[in-house]
Amino acid sequence: MKIMLFRQLFDEESSTYTYLIADRSLKQALLVDPVLEQVERDRKLLYELQLTLKYCLETHIHADHITGTGKLRGITGCLVIVPENAPVNCADGFLRDREVLKLGDVIIEAIATPGHTDSHSAYLVNNKAVLTGDALFIRGCGRTDFQGGNAGVLYDSVTQRLFTLPDETLVYPAHDYNGHSVSTIREEKQYNPRFLGRDRPQFITFMNNLNLPDPKKMIKAVPANQKCGNI
Amino acid sequence: MKIMLFRQLFDEESSTYTYLIADRSLKQALLVDPVLEQVERDRKLLYELQLTLKYCLETHIHADHITGTGKLRGITGCLVIVPENAPVNCADGFLRDREVLKLGDVIIEAIATPGHTDSHSAYLVNNKAVLTGDALFIRGCGRTDFQGGNAGVLYDSVTQRLFTLPDETLVYPAHDYNGHSVSTIREEKQYNPRFLGRDRPQFITFMNNLNLPDPKKMIKAVPANQKCGNI
Repeated sequence: MKIMLFRQLFDEESSTYTYLIADRSLKQALLVDPVLEQVERDRKLLYELQLTLKYCLETHIHADHITGTGKLRGITGCLVIVPENAPVNCADGFLRDREVLKLGDVIIEAIATPGHTDSHSAYLVNNKAVLTGDALFIRGCGRTDFQGGNAGVLYDSVTQRLFTLPDETLVYPAHDYNGHSVSTIREEKQYNPRFLGRDRPQFITFMNNLNLPDPKKMIKAVPANQKCGNI
Repeated sequence: MKIMLFRQLFDEESSTYTYLIADRSLKQALLVDPVLEQVERDRKLLYELQLTLKYCLETHIHADHITGTGKLRGITGCLVIVPENAPVNCADGFLRDREVLKLGDVIIEAIATPGHTDSHSAYLVNNKAVLTGDALFIRGCGRTDFQGGNAGVLYDSVTQRLFTLPDETLVYPAHDYNGHSVSTIREEKQYNPRFLGRDRPQFITFMNNLNLPDPKKMIKAVPANQKCGNI
């Protein structure tokens, strides 16, 4: 049996993936990007797997759903960890670019990947899988038109920090809207239509002309998430 | 790199999981329980991964969505394989209980698991993961009130054929309605509320009193699926 437990969990309303990662021998876990409405599901799963929640990590301040970090901290006493410079007043810790968080045999390395928001981190798990947040989706990427988003900065994050990981690195995004669960860096370099055949200026022009409506929950979610979802 | 590729795919409308399994060195693949509306997604993924689709397998005749097997056969020339005794007029082959299908290093063993429907098969993949169809869900199970469903038979299938697999066997169901993606036989034996604390007569009584409405698509889906989704 592998020492690391890795579970992908889905919130259908916001199409958000939450990741439960644990060291089975230590029986300690962390959650990445938990969703407020799914806290009871996640709490129950932790209980059944007999895992103690040590950390809740955010890839960024979300605009489309309210985070479950604050509620989970209230229940479990876990520490809430967010990317360096994330505009939150409630975090227990911040992870700088290339900083490492260890949980037994589980090693999480932060990769600063701004552009979707101005403080965004991907998390490399045991050098095998990368949780890409909203920087890189499977055949897509996050939008860049609010919360300090910047298309050029996102282009640099994806092409210089994520596409430079080994080809076989598994890609686990924070959202998927087409029923995909996992990809690889090789696949995204080969087939991601947002980046394929576009240089930096072309990507900026493309992203700046998406003209997407604001996320439905944005007005409520962003200020709530700056307080760890304590609304 | 592992020789077997394993991808879980989701259809949000019907909450159906489709599984893409392939031998990377042979570049040959099979799909289990493809959904008609997702055929283009699946075809594109096969193309991008440079895989030839050899087989489409069904765990059973579905009542809640229309299968993509017929359409995929038309596009790729794959063979459509269904459980023994499944009432379909379009299959290229049938798998009996304990019969094995090989695709290079990928070994799929059929486990007859009737009860949700009268012809239902789970598929054991390389003795490590079991695709449980609608016989066993994560903390749940399929209903037993139509298509020859029988609660006592399902109880026997789950407790005698699935719960007797090694504890660490990964459980991949055909549906999930709560955002779970995977479980283990150990977890389901310990925590599945449908079976926990219920003997066979109690399970039958419980299942026979669920009084669920028919699936919305049932009238259309069952006859369509008896023709491999050729509607």
